[in-house]
Amino acid sequence: MPIPESHLDLLERPLFAHLAQLRPDGRLQSNPVWYAWDGRRLRLTTTSDRHKGRNAVADPRIALSIHDPDRPYRYLEVRGEVEAIEPDPHGEFFDVLAKRYDLAYDELPDAARRVVLVIAPHAASWQ
Amino acid sequence: MPIPESHLDLLERPLFAHLAQLRPDGRLQSNPVWYAWDGRRLRLTTTSDRHKGRNAVADPRIALSIHDPDRPYRYLEVRGEVEAIEPDPHGEFFDVLAKRYDLAYDELPDAARRVVLVIAPHAASWQ
Repeated sequence: MPIPESHLDLLERPLFAHLAQLRPDGRLQSNPVWYAWDGRRLRLTTTSDRHKGRNAVADPRIALSIHDPDRPYRYLEVRGEVEAIEPDPHGEFFDVLAKRYDLAYDELPDAARRVVLVIAPHAASWQ
Repeated sequence: MPIPESHLDLLERPLFAHLAQLRPDGRLQSNPVWYAWDGRRLRLTTTSDRHKGRNAVADPRIALSIHDPDRPYRYLEVRGEVEAIEPDPHGEFFDVLAKRYDLAYDELPDAARRVVLVIAPHAASWQ
């Protein structure tokens, strides 16, 4: 497991990760995202028609970094791959994240297109 | 200029950007970085022997994203290229950034290897 014990809190706390992906046109992309960590895999929510979902289909490589808002020079970077794209047609995983991040919402209009990006970490850097 | 007026403050304030690059081994990388914006170009500091400096030599493509710590769903993403890598052998640009980010330091042991990554924005996304 490439994540050091000293920085696991950055995965466990509901912070914002910045997700790097390659677009099919060859450009790089970086976006803040919600995430959940189960001790082995990172999971993100997106939709099959958003850039994040389409990028993951075209190229599984990702990196993401999270800085500690209380000590901004403390950060964790995870490099890895999207190893599965799981349908979430009732938005159940979206709801898990919305509760984790304390976001109230009435309905999820794009639930039918929701997917979970399951990320396997291959390497990490930290400070 | 691809940056919308509504989000220029995210480049003007001393926040942390998360920089996405491709490594020569084909892996993606994401790291928090300091930056300065002159209204046309973004400038970052690194060294010629750090990953960020070596990545920029091998592949100029970058993306970076910045979220507003006061309103974390507000963010700016910039996609572009490193158009120049300028030597900074006395750490003068490092010092500009250290003052901007209010970091006190006694000396800069790697000044001889310091470089400035000059980034031309090609496109932006925001929310």
